[in-house]
Amino acid sequence: MEKVAIGQAGGPTAVINASLVGFLDQLTDQDEAYVIFNGFQGLVDDQIYPMTDPLSQQINSYHDVPGCCLGAGRYPIDNSNIEKVVEHLRQRDIHSLVFIGGNGTMSTLLDIQRSAQHMHYDLQVIGIPKTVDNDLYLTDHAPGFASAARYIALSTRDISKDLEAMKNFEQVRILETMGRNVGWLAASSGLFKEHDTDGPHLIYLPENHLNHESFLQEIQHTVQSLGFATVVVSEGVQLEDHEKVMLESVNGRNILGGVSQHLSYLVKKELGYVTRSEILGMNQRSAQLYVSAQDRLEAYQVGAKAFEYIQQGESEIMVAIQRQSGDTYLFELSHVALREVALKERTLFPEFIEDRQAFYKWLKPLIGADVEPYPPMLHREVKLI
Amino acid sequence: MEKVAIGQAGGPTAVINASLVGFLDQLTDQDEAYVIFNGFQGLVDDQIYPMTDPLSQQINSYHDVPGCCLGAGRYPIDNSNIEKVVEHLRQRDIHSLVFIGGNGTMSTLLDIQRSAQHMHYDLQVIGIPKTVDNDLYLTDHAPGFASAARYIALSTRDISKDLEAMKNFEQVRILETMGRNVGWLAASSGLFKEHDTDGPHLIYLPENHLNHESFLQEIQHTVQSLGFATVVVSEGVQLEDHEKVMLESVNGRNILGGVSQHLSYLVKKELGYVTRSEILGMNQRSAQLYVSAQDRLEAYQVGAKAFEYIQQGESEIMVAIQRQSGDTYLFELSHVALREVALKERTLFPEFIEDRQAFYKWLKPLIGADVEPYPPMLHREVKLI
Repeated sequence: MEKVAIGQAGGPTAVINASLVGFLDQLTDQDEAYVIFNGFQGLVDDQIYPMTDPLSQQINSYHDVPGCCLGAGRYPIDNSNIEKVVEHLRQRDIHSLVFIGGNGTMSTLLDIQRSAQHMHYDLQVIGIPKTVDNDLYLTDHAPGFASAARYIALSTRDISKDLEAMKNFEQVRILETMGRNVGWLAASSGLFKEHDTDGPHLIYLPENHLNHESFLQEIQHTVQSLGFATVVVSEGVQLEDHEKVMLESVNGRNILGGVSQHLSYLVKKELGYVTRSEILGMNQRSAQLYVSAQDRLEAYQVGAKAFEYIQQGESEIMVAIQRQSGDTYLFELSHVALREVALKERTLFPEFIEDRQAFYKWLKPLIGADVEPYPPMLHREVKLI
Repeated sequence: MEKVAIGQAGGPTAVINASLVGFLDQLTDQDEAYVIFNGFQGLVDDQIYPMTDPLSQQINSYHDVPGCCLGAGRYPIDNSNIEKVVEHLRQRDIHSLVFIGGNGTMSTLLDIQRSAQHMHYDLQVIGIPKTVDNDLYLTDHAPGFASAARYIALSTRDISKDLEAMKNFEQVRILETMGRNVGWLAASSGLFKEHDTDGPHLIYLPENHLNHESFLQEIQHTVQSLGFATVVVSEGVQLEDHEKVMLESVNGRNILGGVSQHLSYLVKKELGYVTRSEILGMNQRSAQLYVSAQDRLEAYQVGAKAFEYIQQGESEIMVAIQRQSGDTYLFELSHVALREVALKERTLFPEFIEDRQAFYKWLKPLIGADVEPYPPMLHREVKLI
């Protein structure tokens, strides 16, 4: 018999609710579960509710819905409120705490466990991985990433087809992806590229510095050879001259900017091409139609596995996905120490930066093989009649 | 035996290639077809190619691909180049010209016909409707619109679910849709709204003036009652004080702006909510996964119908969709005079602005009934244990 509480934290993904359902599905009549509303804020404010049959049914209905059905958000747990958290758990005699989140969440879980220890309260803490950026250490990848990558790869291909048709009017589009410090998502944009004409034509990652001069040369070369250029930049791409581009102020008004807007301005000014920048936006982490079936399945399974670890008495761990070697995609679930992943950021592997095809081979099974390649550009008969 | 040329013009949609395939599928071995690359530019530059079996197969493979596989774009036909167009057609003895496009395209077709008449060249011109904005007169709706509306309706619902989870961190999102002068797309954002908590909570159309004070009150009211607000504005919404918000300049640098960014700034400044603006972007007209099956089918059929009208000797007409009365969605294809639709813009009907449910009832069959409603927000047990 387990007495557990589970919550969701940080930014949502399109499959995080599947992890919650996966966990709750393992409960038996012997177990007593609580859900925490509004993430760590709910833990501080005592928004901890006992599971009931109606609540359980409602949560089940969220299996395929994006966002966090319990509420999540960003809320700081620190010395000022961490004891309250332990008190709220103690009050209900809850000795197992589970959160679905990213590297910040894993760090907070560890802090709560240490505080509980200090307060002589026995507390088991387990993390379920979730991130769109794919920056969690020691797991092959984390649920949420593949669906975001799928959105980006399909959108880039489609938006490039649109630009191709418009190239006598508009030559360059710069698409900005999520990934504040890591380039997994931006690199994914090329997954469905089949022909040289398909977008993206150029990708810029935060792992590399972007040199303005080379950037402009690469754009110019692409437009000269194809007539247009679809460019993908990660929101966190580092500009070599460290120019600040994130936020501008006009007459005391903050203008939201981004690296894509800055680069778009540069292309227009220096090369004279009609250029548009576009931030791919919140659909990256919430578009239901773009969810990868494999991603949702894995989200469910890491949730289910967390309950198994609760029963085995594990603590201070995060569930991890271990890919098996071999050509067929197979994985096992295991666990890693929270202290090894807390607050750490895993950048795109250098071997994947070097060899994009190796990266696509790694990525493809996570996104699904259900995508048909686009046909080549029309071949025109040269002979005029 | 018909000798026809067909091209695509203006901005692409996700289903415009289906119209092209629909037209070409009607050709028999007796007919002689030409395709025009790059829209009206190709007509001026003589990029007119005879149809061959390989080319026909290639075009068929684009049936489900967004963008215009022939190339389209925006290019002005005027007195300086219109005679060239007629000469290029005369050179090949082509007496039927078909273009897939919007109200600008319909106007250009009419200009070309008049020029041909003036040059004593017999020319039949027929337009196939295409628009994402749905601003074409005298057709119940135009292919391309329903897929864009589907993208907007589903994205708004998903992005709102994401915001709902984040509401302790971020309270307001302002989503900007296409529709420079008409509100069909922005109004569509609410199609899948099932519960008060589902987004969008507020919609602003170009057909109405936006009063800043009421706008702020409505946002405040929504955030006070739900904790967050998902707001949809059309890019063409008219601000009552006529403040210019489309483009700003910072130290000689153009900053792309938009009405959503302006309103987001206003909400932050006046109400203090954490607010984000997002332009829904080019996916509105190019996302393959969001295509409405009904829309694609109709795109094909209006293309096919255009060939029938060619055979019947019709000219200076646009194919139109006429909805049949009754509860079941049925339509017939007919034609309307080009002069009645050229350059005109059809705004959202007043009865649909007044009665949003009537609009949704009109819209639903175009978008497909394959979308499951999202479940209600979780109901929390009030009794704490």
